Amino acid sequence: MTVYLVGAGPGEADLLTVRAARLLGDADVVVRDRLVDESVMGYVNPHAEVIDVGKRPGESSSQASINALLIELGGRFETVVRLKGGDPFVFGRGGEELVALNDAGIACDVVPGLSSALAGPLAAGIPVTHRGISRGVTIVSARGARGELTDFRGLANSELSLVILMGIEHRGDIARQLEEGGLDSTTPVAVIEQAWTNQQRTTRGVLADLARFDVRPPAVIVVGGVAALDLRSMGILDVALI
Amino acid sequence: MTVYLVGAGPGEADLLTVRAARLLGDADVVVRDRLVDESVMGYVNPHAEVIDVGKRPGESSSQASINALLIELGGRFETVVRLKGGDPFVFGRGGEELVALNDAGIACDVVPGLSSALAGPLAAGIPVTHRGISRGVTIVSARGARGELTDFRGLANSELSLVILMGIEHRGDIARQLEEGGLDSTTPVAVIEQAWTNQQRTTRGVLADLARFDVRPPAVIVVGGVAALDLRSMGILDVALI
Repeated sequence: MTVYLVGAGPGEADLLTVRAARLLGDADVVVRDRLVDESVMGYVNPHAEVIDVGKRPGESSSQASINALLIELGGRFETVVRLKGGDPFVFGRGGEELVALNDAGIACDVVPGLSSALAGPLAAGIPVTHRGISRGVTIVSARGARGELTDFRGLANSELSLVILMGIEHRGDIARQLEEGGLDSTTPVAVIEQAWTNQQRTTRGVLADLARFDVRPPAVIVVGGVAALDLRSMGILDVALI
Repeated sequence: MTVYLVGAGPGEADLLTVRAARLLGDADVVVRDRLVDESVMGYVNPHAEVIDVGKRPGESSSQASINALLIELGGRFETVVRLKGGDPFVFGRGGEELVALNDAGIACDVVPGLSSALAGPLAAGIPVTHRGISRGVTIVSARGARGELTDFRGLANSELSLVILMGIEHRGDIARQLEEGGLDSTTPVAVIEQAWTNQQRTTRGVLADLARFDVRPPAVIVVGGVAALDLRSMGILDVALI
């Protein structure tokens, strides 16, 4: 009897791993999140029970009840799949669920998924690293463990790409703090909504524009020279090299 | 006629995406890298030609010839798969190949793979983000575009996890610079060699020990509180909360 914490990937069903698809087919019960794309559910064993514990934005109090549910199911079923959008261990709180299962003596394992932090930008033709433009990438969530806004002043670094998850409603504060931290107001910015779905939409501009972008979650924000690239369609645009 | 830049994922074959597995089965020709796990090649169409352009460490001059090869193949075959270990767009230079193909008028598309930067640590039970321990993660390569060592002093940030790729031979310099930048010498460190393969090996310690770790590439280095976690086997160890 094992609980598998499985990443569903960023969207379209076939961006799931082969291992995840096999586990969904073998599952007795699947506990799914809101951010799991509907298409992924086509891999689920038709005899499996599916439980939706999707949290709406702003609701974060039920992690304890999800942990309790997984422990209870892990004691009753042979194969339990806990399915989370993207990667369960990149701001997915998969670690907290694993700790709870370990503490309860329930066998568990992990199957990573494509994180929207890396695959989301690529959907819009943006590589998070690119020689001569970015030395690396920092991935953060706009809010910390206690709901406080992350301090973006300390994350202003013109040599690193910055990928921000769950930042749409705070985009004005984020842009202001990054400028206060030293990023130029002309730094390229892109917002990719619903990456790797047929609802995908990309908005591009510069840091000074970000507050006025007409965008809605779920979306990732990319800040830095790479945000001006669109390698899926037209190659490198005019960006400054570091 | 299309060239697909496809991520092979970090190791074991079934950590490839379903889309990548399908494309390998449809391929007329596969151009593979050194870091692609042998097991992944089991998905390749048995009638496909396989070309190994794997570069050994230190050899980096042949990117132009790889670009030229992909352009030539893209003009002759219906389905060309350029298969790279991990994710082609996280220090994989996939962007450079896409630009060359775009410039030559060859149709191309991308299929992201699990990056060893995120999946590698998880193989050892290390989530790159964990509530109360890490606010986010920075991913860098130890060397920059012109082969120069990355300046790690500016990357010392006790609130972010730091994942370093291709850093094994520079681990002494990396540790020294991170301490000079302000990281405590007792900051947890882990090195995961050959993640998600049957050769996987994890070495743990603190920043002051890193120079003396007995480790070999390919491996990822993780620096920060999360490096003390082992969620796949024993839950949270004793780490300080931020």
